[in-house]
Amino acid sequence: MTAFLETNKQRFLDELLELLRIPSVSADSRFKDDVRRTAEFVRDKLTAAGLDEAQLFETAGHPIVYAEKIVDSAKPTVLVYGHYDVQPADPYELWHSPPFEPTIRNERIYARGACDDKGQFYMHIKAIEAMVATDGLPCNVKVMIEGEEEVGSDNLGTFVREQSELLKADVILISDTSIISNETPSLETGLRGLSYVEVQVTGPNRDLHSGVYGGGVANPVNVLCEMIASLHDENGRINIPGFYDKVADLSDEERSELAKAPFDLEEYKRDLGINDVMGETGYSTNERTSIRPTLDVNGIWGGYTGEGAKTVLPSKASAKISMRLVPNQTPNEITELFTRHFTSIAPAGVQVQVTPHHGGMPYVTPVDSVEFEAASKAFEEAWGKKPIPTRGGGSIPITALFEEVLGIKSILMGFGLDSDALHSPNESYGLFNFYKGIETIPYFYKHYAALKS
Amino acid sequence: MTAFLETNKQRFLDELLELLRIPSVSADSRFKDDVRRTAEFVRDKLTAAGLDEAQLFETAGHPIVYAEKIVDSAKPTVLVYGHYDVQPADPYELWHSPPFEPTIRNERIYARGACDDKGQFYMHIKAIEAMVATDGLPCNVKVMIEGEEEVGSDNLGTFVREQSELLKADVILISDTSIISNETPSLETGLRGLSYVEVQVTGPNRDLHSGVYGGGVANPVNVLCEMIASLHDENGRINIPGFYDKVADLSDEERSELAKAPFDLEEYKRDLGINDVMGETGYSTNERTSIRPTLDVNGIWGGYTGEGAKTVLPSKASAKISMRLVPNQTPNEITELFTRHFTSIAPAGVQVQVTPHHGGMPYVTPVDSVEFEAASKAFEEAWGKKPIPTRGGGSIPITALFEEVLGIKSILMGFGLDSDALHSPNESYGLFNFYKGIETIPYFYKHYAALKS
Repeated sequence: MTAFLETNKQRFLDELLELLRIPSVSADSRFKDDVRRTAEFVRDKLTAAGLDEAQLFETAGHPIVYAEKIVDSAKPTVLVYGHYDVQPADPYELWHSPPFEPTIRNERIYARGACDDKGQFYMHIKAIEAMVATDGLPCNVKVMIEGEEEVGSDNLGTFVREQSELLKADVILISDTSIISNETPSLETGLRGLSYVEVQVTGPNRDLHSGVYGGGVANPVNVLCEMIASLHDENGRINIPGFYDKVADLSDEERSELAKAPFDLEEYKRDLGINDVMGETGYSTNERTSIRPTLDVNGIWGGYTGEGAKTVLPSKASAKISMRLVPNQTPNEITELFTRHFTSIAPAGVQVQVTPHHGGMPYVTPVDSVEFEAASKAFEEAWGKKPIPTRGGGSIPITALFEEVLGIKSILMGFGLDSDALHSPNESYGLFNFYKGIETIPYFYKHYAALKS
Repeated sequence: MTAFLETNKQRFLDELLELLRIPSVSADSRFKDDVRRTAEFVRDKLTAAGLDEAQLFETAGHPIVYAEKIVDSAKPTVLVYGHYDVQPADPYELWHSPPFEPTIRNERIYARGACDDKGQFYMHIKAIEAMVATDGLPCNVKVMIEGEEEVGSDNLGTFVREQSELLKADVILISDTSIISNETPSLETGLRGLSYVEVQVTGPNRDLHSGVYGGGVANPVNVLCEMIASLHDENGRINIPGFYDKVADLSDEERSELAKAPFDLEEYKRDLGINDVMGETGYSTNERTSIRPTLDVNGIWGGYTGEGAKTVLPSKASAKISMRLVPNQTPNEITELFTRHFTSIAPAGVQVQVTPHHGGMPYVTPVDSVEFEAASKAFEEAWGKKPIPTRGGGSIPITALFEEVLGIKSILMGFGLDSDALHSPNESYGLFNFYKGIETIPYFYKHYAALKS
């Protein structure tokens, strides 16, 4: 195994770079053909890795790639999940090298999707190839790589429900999260959910001259700012009636357990170039970004945004707003609470429209399962130290769906770093992490097979 | 005169349409050559109208067009001021016909600059041509048409100071304002000033994943919204310390005089498609848009504004904010008050930058002068009724400069309508107004010469 990985090192990397060159931006219909091309690339690599039945399943949106290898029906089955689509790459001008021309600098691969999630799911295909080519697979394996994770996995639910027999497995293995650092491996035990909406405030039926009308009619940008500002109170709590009703508060014990994860606030601020952190009163930075819900504006626009000055009183203003959810909030309920509240606070003189984008359930993994133990042992064997359990702030909405439909838990065995700049310009993934992931994954199969036998 | 105007009607219009076809957007450097081409067009038409010395004066920005005709040094001199530059035309997609392909529909000329100010200053060139070609000019005339009014007339000040001898005159005549309606002519007796700034809020040094960091660091868009929202109090008053200190409050008598101008609130709301007006408590809509200062966001942007959803916590958010000023506020002082206040309310975790764009002084014309009387009589003769004195909400910052440097007052003899959609998509100017203006202007010269003799 070690020799095989060493011999094929360069080829594994070259293949990943080829995959990163295809701009599979699922959110933007201009990239539709590229998204399909990416799916076909993944299918072909699954076949090349020695898997059977590699194929595309069509959906109402982008296709899902599936393949499997059943070595022995008595052995446990691992279902690998990942996504081959990526976030939009704008603003392009902030990238130091083009987002879809992967470049290696300082032992890191710079490209959109380098870590999220092309670099991470591709480790699995290479790890499976290595197992097949050397000692053989210790478990059965099924691989499902979707193309709509970055737009809410709208069609994966239907697929999973329809193909629940095909997808039957004992555990789901996902690499789409981070470790604390390359010196401190960790395993995420929970993720936040998501409710994402777009809002539009409309005032007058046309853009107006701000001199002639200014002061006399509602300015939709000012109104939108006031409405958004009112969504947080002075303690950084979200000011939507009912928003916190179902939030599962952690016990002091659980909180002090989580507080054990190493965290250097000064280093955190230095890395982000900020002079202070900000958030909900009464919670630490780690808690604010994991066990507490949030409301962030992801984008805002309205009026004249070009060069120079234009004295316009705009007709419309819009914003994209997302809320990260924690157990036991549900996206549907939160989206509805938001919509009802946001509409109710609109002043006379404007119209408000709220359009839900996508949502996802929060998720928690039990740490006392054989699955978690297998993952923990895999890290220990590859990295020489036990991984620290952490709670993550991001969302992989599909984990809750898997549990509901397939009745199985997901193990979040990610290898990224928070500094990989996911969703940002100059996203990157360390060569160390890519190769270390390929090395760690087979240990999971080994320990899982042993623990289940 | 009447015969001359009638005979040349179509040619006058054709020339205006030609002028409107040149996209002289002063704010956008991509249109630099078009702006110059417009200046040359205006210069040539001034020569063709019979004026002498028509020429371009170069400035650090766009050129100023000048021409004159001194018929008798004993006669009074009228200085005509206008601007050949126009506002940017975006958003282009909202125009029913392209902004720089003037189209006539329903007896109106649709084009960027149709009213503001190409259609309005061009009336003067044609009125002068008509006077020269028929009865001769009753006064001396100087014409100064600049190309930077829409970006703050930055270089006109230097020009006026340097050329104060050349520009010596008894009155300045400007058509860049509106009348109440085609049935109710009016003369503006005052204009608001302007302070225009651009603000930028910077949080983390890069766009972040809103799941990984959300809740833990200041989101510059949320912060910008909160800062903007705090700039108005619950009574619609501007919440900047010192902002109202110098505002000249009108007496009850002055207010009831202004309230005599006809105004139909239901019609106003219907025209704008709004279910209610909004503004400072205790003032009427007409007062809010003329004798009271304002603060409007003219543009806002930050984060992801493309198709679909992107879960980004943006690094920066920006806005363009303008304040309309009333006597005796000054743009420098208000810009400074704004900057000091806005910077002071920035929370820890973000950096704030305020960049002043341009400003202009508020202006009031005395109604008991011979200049105002001449304008009033001109309207009465052409329209068959006395014009109503009104206070305007827009700004022509240069009027205050003219008074300061040249020591002369400006008469605001505009012929536009509020519904002409200045600065908006589908700006237009009525053919009636264009021709009625050309007819009215010579009466001003006649009455002014008579009153001054």
